[in-house]
Amino acid sequence: MSPRTGRRIGDSGTREAILRAARQRFAHQGYDAASIRQIADDAGVDPALVHHFYGTKENLFVTAVGFPALPSELLAQVGDGARGRLGERLLRSLLEVWETREGRARLVALVRSAVSNDAAMEMLRQFLTSAILDQVAATLEVPDAELRASLVASQVVGLALARYVFRIRPLATAPADDVVAAVGPTLQRYLTGKLDVWSGAGS
Amino acid sequence: MSPRTGRRIGDSGTREAILRAARQRFAHQGYDAASIRQIADDAGVDPALVHHFYGTKENLFVTAVGFPALPSELLAQVGDGARGRLGERLLRSLLEVWETREGRARLVALVRSAVSNDAAMEMLRQFLTSAILDQVAATLEVPDAELRASLVASQVVGLALARYVFRIRPLATAPADDVVAAVGPTLQRYLTGKLDVWSGAGS
Repeated sequence: MSPRTGRRIGDSGTREAILRAARQRFAHQGYDAASIRQIADDAGVDPALVHHFYGTKENLFVTAVGFPALPSELLAQVGDGARGRLGERLLRSLLEVWETREGRARLVALVRSAVSNDAAMEMLRQFLTSAILDQVAATLEVPDAELRASLVASQVVGLALARYVFRIRPLATAPADDVVAAVGPTLQRYLTGKLDVWSGAGS
Repeated sequence: MSPRTGRRIGDSGTREAILRAARQRFAHQGYDAASIRQIADDAGVDPALVHHFYGTKENLFVTAVGFPALPSELLAQVGDGARGRLGERLLRSLLEVWETREGRARLVALVRSAVSNDAAMEMLRQFLTSAILDQVAATLEVPDAELRASLVASQVVGLALARYVFRIRPLATAPADDVVAAVGPTLQRYLTGKLDVWSGAGS
């Protein structure tokens, strides 16, 4: 494979053509079915050039749709440390991105496009499942790993919506540390706790 | 005040005119500022007729925008019982509405309009705060009642989104009882538990 296919490497027009082709493929075919090869064909470049510019399909997706985190990097950071504080680390990593102006803007834009557009939602649903939830489930080594991952998703998406989109006070204005203290244990229980019993609830 | 103002009581055109005026007032002014009197004026009827048809402002709002529950009724049901299972009862009451075809359709439509339209979002945010979260906070008699109510909102909104809008599996297809067992304790902790300590998480 030759990375030189008539366009100069580094040409910003080529990069933009690749991202445009990627957005269309991901939107029309979903994350799982879209391939780097097809995207390269659509953009009129060699697949090696797409890899050269954007690395993995995950990274191409993150760049093309403005996903507010690189999941594989996030998961590597989160996985490194005590299992009993997995929920806290996951939440801190997400908040680090979301509490920046750019990260928050991307998050809000993404939620809006997913909720208002079925193709965007399906694309995002597949990406969340393949690139995040399945990976989390595979490393957990607990029963009901998929259910646990989807419960984490429900609280994470709900937190993002309540804090940044709906801006429900006082959650919208609470310091990040307070959010971690309040919501971290929820994620921890979903990840490694007991899901089918009432722990500590009186009657 | 006379309920007879040139239109026949029970006239479905009058009811529709009231609902249309209500939708516009709520969308433009928000839930808190909109009044039954203004809505009646806009619809060209006496305020008493609006009360006769729709009772409270809360009920008029619920009918006009298709809110998938009457909060005051829901909260009365939920409040009646053991405090240690408040989270479970709240979740069961919500799922009873959402697991019906009509309740789910209304919920999805409402989330979509709120996320894609700023006026609809502000209207819903005010209604959630005034008609639900402030009421919950007032009855809790615990510190940080407002933060607790907004944390409950984050998990409830996230569950609705993950289960019915994004349809993230297996949460989207799990039996309602499993959802209550998994998510009920989260709501219980947000409502009455400790929010600022790590309960039972090893290091």
